Amino acid sequence: MKRALGVCYYPEHWPEEMWARDAAEMVSVGLSWVRIGEFAWSRLEPDPGQFDFDWLDRAIETLGGAGLRVILGTPSATPPRWMLDRFPDMLAVDATGHPRTFGSRRHYCHSHDGYRDAAAAMAARLAERYGKNPHVAAWQIDNEYGCHDTVLSYSAAAKDAFRNWLAQKYQSPDALNRAWGNVFWSMEYSDFNDIDLPNLTVTQPNPSHELAFRRFASDQVVQWNAAQAAALRKHTDKPLIHNYMGRVLEFDHFAVARDLDIASWDSYPIGFLSDRLEASPEYKARYLRQGDPDMQAFHHDLYRAMNAGRWWVMEQQPGPVNWAPYNPAPLPGMVRLWTWEAFAHGAEIVSYFRWRQAPFAQEQMHAGLKRPDDAPAPGTAEAAAVAAELRDMPDVGIAAAPVALIFDYPSSWAWNVLPQGADFDYFRLIFDAYRALRRRGLSVDILPAETSDLSAYKLVLAPGLGTLPDPLRAAIGQTTCLLGPRANLITDELSIPMPMGPNLPGLKTTVSCVESLPPGTARPVTGGGAVLHWHETLEGDAETALEMADGAPLMVGKDGLHYLAGWPDAALWDRVIDLLGLDLTLEDLPDGLRLRDTATHRFAFNYSPDTVTWNGTSIAAADVVWWPL
Amino acid sequence: MKRALGVCYYPEHWPEEMWARDAAEMVSVGLSWVRIGEFAWSRLEPDPGQFDFDWLDRAIETLGGAGLRVILGTPSATPPRWMLDRFPDMLAVDATGHPRTFGSRRHYCHSHDGYRDAAAAMAARLAERYGKNPHVAAWQIDNEYGCHDTVLSYSAAAKDAFRNWLAQKYQSPDALNRAWGNVFWSMEYSDFNDIDLPNLTVTQPNPSHELAFRRFASDQVVQWNAAQAAALRKHTDKPLIHNYMGRVLEFDHFAVARDLDIASWDSYPIGFLSDRLEASPEYKARYLRQGDPDMQAFHHDLYRAMNAGRWWVMEQQPGPVNWAPYNPAPLPGMVRLWTWEAFAHGAEIVSYFRWRQAPFAQEQMHAGLKRPDDAPAPGTAEAAAVAAELRDMPDVGIAAAPVALIFDYPSSWAWNVLPQGADFDYFRLIFDAYRALRRRGLSVDILPAETSDLSAYKLVLAPGLGTLPDPLRAAIGQTTCLLGPRANLITDELSIPMPMGPNLPGLKTTVSCVESLPPGTARPVTGGGAVLHWHETLEGDAETALEMADGAPLMVGKDGLHYLAGWPDAALWDRVIDLLGLDLTLEDLPDGLRLRDTATHRFAFNYSPDTVTWNGTSIAAADVVWWPL
Amino acid sequence: MKRALGVCYYPEHWPEEMWARDAAEMVSVGLSWVRIGEFAWSRLEPDPGQFDFDWLDRAIETLGGAGLRVILGTPSATPPRWMLDRFPDMLAVDATGHPRTFGSRRHYCHSHDGYRDAAAAMAARLAERYGKNPHVAAWQIDNEYGCHDTVLSYSAAAKDAFRNWLAQKYQSPDALNRAWGNVFWSMEYSDFNDIDLPNLTVTQPNPSHELAFRRFASDQVVQWNAAQAAALRKHTDKPLIHNYMGRVLEFDHFAVARDLDIASWDSYPIGFLSDRLEASPEYKARYLRQGDPDMQAFHHDLYRAMNAGRWWVMEQQPGPVNWAPYNPAPLPGMVRLWTWEAFAHGAEIVSYFRWRQAPFAQEQMHAGLKRPDDAPAPGTAEAAAVAAELRDMPDVGIAAAPVALIFDYPSSWAWNVLPQGADFDYFRLIFDAYRALRRRGLSVDILPAETSDLSAYKLVLAPGLGTLPDPLRAAIGQTTCLLGPRANLITDELSIPMPMGPNLPGLKTTVSCVESLPPGTARPVTGGGAVLHWHETLEGDAETALEMADGAPLMVGKDGLHYLAGWPDAALWDRVIDLLGLDLTLEDLPDGLRLRDTATHRFAFNYSPDTVTWNGTSIAAADVVWWPL
Repeated sequence: MKRALGVCYYPEHWPEEMWARDAAEMVSVGLSWVRIGEFAWSRLEPDPGQFDFDWLDRAIETLGGAGLRVILGTPSATPPRWMLDRFPDMLAVDATGHPRTFGSRRHYCHSHDGYRDAAAAMAARLAERYGKNPHVAAWQIDNEYGCHDTVLSYSAAAKDAFRNWLAQKYQSPDALNRAWGNVFWSMEYSDFNDIDLPNLTVTQPNPSHELAFRRFASDQVVQWNAAQAAALRKHTDKPLIHNYMGRVLEFDHFAVARDLDIASWDSYPIGFLSDRLEASPEYKARYLRQGDPDMQAFHHDLYRAMNAGRWWVMEQQPGPVNWAPYNPAPLPGMVRLWTWEAFAHGAEIVSYFRWRQAPFAQEQMHAGLKRPDDAPAPGTAEAAAVAAELRDMPDVGIAAAPVALIFDYPSSWAWNVLPQGADFDYFRLIFDAYRALRRRGLSVDILPAETSDLSAYKLVLAPGLGTLPDPLRAAIGQTTCLLGPRANLITDELSIPMPMGPNLPGLKTTVSCVESLPPGTARPVTGGGAVLHWHETLEGDAETALEMADGAPLMVGKDGLHYLAGWPDAALWDRVIDLLGLDLTLEDLPDGLRLRDTATHRFAFNYSPDTVTWNGTSIAAADVVWWPL
Repeated sequence: MKRALGVCYYPEHWPEEMWARDAAEMVSVGLSWVRIGEFAWSRLEPDPGQFDFDWLDRAIETLGGAGLRVILGTPSATPPRWMLDRFPDMLAVDATGHPRTFGSRRHYCHSHDGYRDAAAAMAARLAERYGKNPHVAAWQIDNEYGCHDTVLSYSAAAKDAFRNWLAQKYQSPDALNRAWGNVFWSMEYSDFNDIDLPNLTVTQPNPSHELAFRRFASDQVVQWNAAQAAALRKHTDKPLIHNYMGRVLEFDHFAVARDLDIASWDSYPIGFLSDRLEASPEYKARYLRQGDPDMQAFHHDLYRAMNAGRWWVMEQQPGPVNWAPYNPAPLPGMVRLWTWEAFAHGAEIVSYFRWRQAPFAQEQMHAGLKRPDDAPAPGTAEAAAVAAELRDMPDVGIAAAPVALIFDYPSSWAWNVLPQGADFDYFRLIFDAYRALRRRGLSVDILPAETSDLSAYKLVLAPGLGTLPDPLRAAIGQTTCLLGPRANLITDELSIPMPMGPNLPGLKTTVSCVESLPPGTARPVTGGGAVLHWHETLEGDAETALEMADGAPLMVGKDGLHYLAGWPDAALWDRVIDLLGLDLTLEDLPDGLRLRDTATHRFAFNYSPDTVTWNGTSIAAADVVWWPL
Repeated sequence: MKRALGVCYYPEHWPEEMWARDAAEMVSVGLSWVRIGEFAWSRLEPDPGQFDFDWLDRAIETLGGAGLRVILGTPSATPPRWMLDRFPDMLAVDATGHPRTFGSRRHYCHSHDGYRDAAAAMAARLAERYGKNPHVAAWQIDNEYGCHDTVLSYSAAAKDAFRNWLAQKYQSPDALNRAWGNVFWSMEYSDFNDIDLPNLTVTQPNPSHELAFRRFASDQVVQWNAAQAAALRKHTDKPLIHNYMGRVLEFDHFAVARDLDIASWDSYPIGFLSDRLEASPEYKARYLRQGDPDMQAFHHDLYRAMNAGRWWVMEQQPGPVNWAPYNPAPLPGMVRLWTWEAFAHGAEIVSYFRWRQAPFAQEQMHAGLKRPDDAPAPGTAEAAAVAAELRDMPDVGIAAAPVALIFDYPSSWAWNVLPQGADFDYFRLIFDAYRALRRRGLSVDILPAETSDLSAYKLVLAPGLGTLPDPLRAAIGQTTCLLGPRANLITDELSIPMPMGPNLPGLKTTVSCVESLPPGTARPVTGGGAVLHWHETLEGDAETALEMADGAPLMVGKDGLHYLAGWPDAALWDRVIDLLGLDLTLEDLPDGLRLRDTATHRFAFNYSPDTVTWNGTSIAAADVVWWPL
């Protein structure tokens, strides 16, 4: 297959006379895909039942006619103002009870049946008209589920739906009371209709109550998406896609993906560094204009796991954004680097956001490939450079990675509900592990917890996996596995299992005590490195592979199965990986350099602000180099 | 008398077949008391008016039959879900107007008469049944008043009750207007029903209004507790107890204590260090696994003052808790140390919380003496060690301390309402003074402001005592007294008195100006030490005992009565104590070591993470040693 | 004219027998003006329609009889409790939807017609009675508009008024949709009554929507003030004044001023340092008891621009206040220094707040010239010293300053709505520029953006001026002007103009990219200094006057018109001013020393805590010296 470039475009924002010129210029830059339509409801149905598709017909014809393949978005993320007259109770409600009102986007509650049906009906109408249109080559449903914290809603609709969900799951209040341990603090219910959403309680609600709500809320997103997917599939056989947002964990992306054909995500490396990464100010200053060296790769690997390897970058940052606390410009070269990194991780399409910076409204300061005055912004030349490189190069393919990391959304909910320490965050833990692998030059696959075959890997890591599913448990013997910290320590209902975890096959070790640690209290490990944030006491006669300076076991196991009883700092992660004695080349990369192996090439990406030398090659800041394998 | 150990137990959480074994094991560990029942309402009255006491009968019989004395709790802190159907308006409301809903605990407003009566009726019913039960040796009313900020409620019930309270106190709106100075900003009222609770105002409400609300709110807790105490006393003559929580100041514990027989508190040294102590990260790292060296002792001394010396630790931390920002495990030995420290301060009973860690619900990560899987946690051995030591040792008794510190809840409210500087907190000020005494090896008594006899003491400190009551004022001449900073500077209504304070007998000094100081602006004192946070300008011809580097008087007085016009740092506290020329041995203790003298012994507690040597004795980290006096 | 001193006084707070003595003492201190009445509504109309002016008659007679000129305040900032019975919906509502209730002050929404009319009627009634009273020499309307964040209200009254305001401005929803770019995210409206206030949206509302709301809210304050001004002018020809508060930017003071005769402001140097200044702890510690060396001067210069040079300090801090996070006392001498600095900047009257510290209510800890017990506080002697100096000295007059700075309220709203970086604040930017000029010894005039004549100045700065009005644009050629950063980059509707800015006459430069920078990422400038917070990329062939270390242009222009493309640090500001090659003497002042030239004298104010030497003169901390010009 041929990797390709695309761009997001809003014909409704520009005079119609500009469309053809825009389309021609996209093609000349080397773009071949264009996403449109996903926020245009007020132009498609200006008044209830009054549809206007003519402009969209012409836009698709113009873009398609120029040789571009169109991704058409359903506009459900932006219901028009009149929709609120029809469904005054469709708004989500925040945890303090305030409605989240009209005036921006994503102003709907996933549990509101009326609006969900209206959104599906609009999708059906679009698919009826464009499902067989030769220019429309793919569909995007909605936009960035969960963005702006829109998964958890405390509306009346959500409350009713939650009660139904509970009734279906538990069948009787007594069963629910037992499952949740509601005898504690007299929290027992005699009727499902007595159960409220877990907000506004005096102190922490029952974590089982909260986890049930989190599962429910994720299911609501899945159903919401499924309704539109079903509506679309009646009229089209083009692939269905959703564009996920980075570090959004409030719904299970694997579950949403089951109703889709291709996964995609929106990659904003510099925005994410500023807005959603725990790191020191010094670290953030170093990567200010490049983004974190692992954040993009992590999401690439994550989304590659969703739909049998088919994934895209639907929105790629091409310049400064508007929404992070601080919004610097990319270092020259980074747009090209990010694009190539996506391809090296297997992206089919990388689509820049957006064609031309809009001069108005919320995102007027969000750079595009073109400036508001139609002059090219720096991103254009970098996109064109990638397009030229793509033309001159065979497809790089995708190779199976030698190591894998389990990523599990319910575990993130469980630890969010019951962190037991202010700094325990599932994403942080997983991402630290991922970074550790990448620092050693390894390519990584990410796997869901439902995986049952690990035989392709030389190492599988599962830190923080709350509950180990049986199929994965059965697969553990197939390769070297490292579980922990905090792995298999809870039941599905978020209680402590008997026998207590991690309860691993052939590994006689029990976590007898857990401790959370404040900053500045790292605990030293014999031989180097330290434990941060989280430390467990192990009991049992499992063989000790690594111990704390006080002699307590930290890593135990043998024959390929190990358990790690603390959150390692970077130095300790290095030692842990070394200790596993893998049949792999572990690199010692310059700071900021990262590698990725595809089916055909090894890529090196220099995220550092300085030239680095590796393997005899000097690589400039923001440069990408590759070697055939 | 014989000091003894106990434990908190929840038979309703465990299969009945485990009860007898649990009871036997408690006895074998050396425990002789067991607290039960305080959260079990949904099991005692599963549906309105449908009572089930059979299980409790059997639990008491089993525990009592094994030789344990039972403390029976009234379950009013956890009204069942159906109670809200009866009293939909019983919930407390937070300062922003949100109800604090069902789903955890303490979901009631102290001003709701209906629920207060229902809670008292339940207490009466329990007392009718168990008031003469030979195994039931004491009663606990409710649980941790004020925990989770539950004293201040802005409900409709609270508003009505506040208006009544004001009408009774002031008799006429004009009297209230004058008392509060409502002419200021045209805040005058013509009807008590026009007066709202002091929340949601545009800027700070009248501090007199706020202080009245704080007094009212405290009174509501007192009445709430009194209603149950009265109900219980009709049917039992066993002692009544409440378990206070550490550093809760929103109600007057002395006032609640008047309706009780024994004070108790819940001591979580490591949780409090993390959650409710102002200290540097370095200090908190040093005492991470031991807790603050003075926090427990302070509360022990405070609660000893409540009921003629009768006090207990009702809940003693035995391992990591779940509710603080960070939850490390105690250093080995600390459970024993904490227990002995309580006995050395006069506790009759120290009761661990809890017997076995519950595997479900909110506190599933809160360690007990036993693990969820019934294996012993580290606390068990330490409890058993104390039990053995107790058996081999005569009772240590209680000695009157040589120095006393006045502690006054209304002063804490006054300064909370009118801090005049972001860092002025009454507890911090008092606790700094307490630490200073303890660092010098002194045992301390805490006294309420209503005290009228100081003759037993060589020194009495009253920092931050807003208003000096007449009896205490009269007693000042009996011994060396040090008042200030901010002592006797306000009226009961929180206005400035005429003549201006401190207005002390025989001490011609007036506070003519007060200043609050940000961090980093400590003011030097001649001879060493500095003033932090708060500094007063003194006027008058009182003799100067200590002066600021700029020559201003800082401490004035003679003949045993002194006034201190600033908040001392640690070095200055040392100097102040030295300067008073007390007929006391002032020790120079190693960092982290603390002493306590009982009637029979001197105890030394090593809170530091290192071995220390004192008085020729080497004392290991977390160790306790004692010498007969 | 003769500069004079005054004081704020509350006869209603004190027994009538004290009034005459107070008045006599004011005169003996050297005060000649007294402001009264602005919070006394509950005493003027205790019950609806029941007026009591007798006490005010006597107070005015007593004060005036003693030789004092009275400023009479309208009491609309403190409507009595009964007003809420008449207008239950008169309260402002905060952004989360909570009403801002009775119990302090400023509890009204500027959009409530009923209360606005009632307030104007009260003003009319006062003016009828006192408009020709020989002792009443001036009027103050209301008190500190915008204090306690009271400009933005989200009440039903505000919503209705906003819709009307929009309808009048845009005439049709389509016009509004186009102006705001509502096609973005389907935010289009078909009816003005569908438009809500821009609070509680899911994510950021359209910045044009927010800016419209900000303009509307400012207009509501203007109209509110105008209603009382009109009512007063019917019955009096004495000057009308409002007392603005420091660093309040939510309404356009220039617009309010058009209905008034004299501007005044309330100057609390130490309170502002603690409460509303971004500075390092070390800087704040240095100026702890003096206040920022430029904050007062800035506001003096700002308010001098409002009413043709007529301006007062209506409230001058005379000792510690009560409302800042920390409230230290002024360094001895500062009250005199602040007073003289006001006169040096042209104040007609400096009036201390307040005569005697009230012993009750919210401001009981706010020092006055006199203590609550009627003894003189330190401020009295300093006020008397100034009075004596004034008597012995000719009037200093006002000289036009050689440099000017444009200050524009709508720009502050625009950048507040669309900061594009967490640290971009219009006031900070302007104030940094002002400081830079003052550090070089320059006197400064502040000008509104509507200015059309710059010929009197040798330099005019306009950093952050969002939109350049045509008259100002036309005036640019009259002198040396420096615009930027972020100047003329937006339209009036807060969108990006075409062609893109700054679009200055004769200066071929375009801002092609903007970046916001986090702390710790300052960018070096060739030759010294650095860019902080904000950096723009310039394009075009304008001459480069200053460039970044990487060679990019930072300051461009010639022939007196320059554009600056970044936010300078202090060192860079110095270089920028030097580079402009002005025909001015640029001083190199000791740290903390400031100069101000009047028509007759040069004044030097030493804000530093140490003696400094300048120009051969040694100036003690907190001292003022002057030399005839």
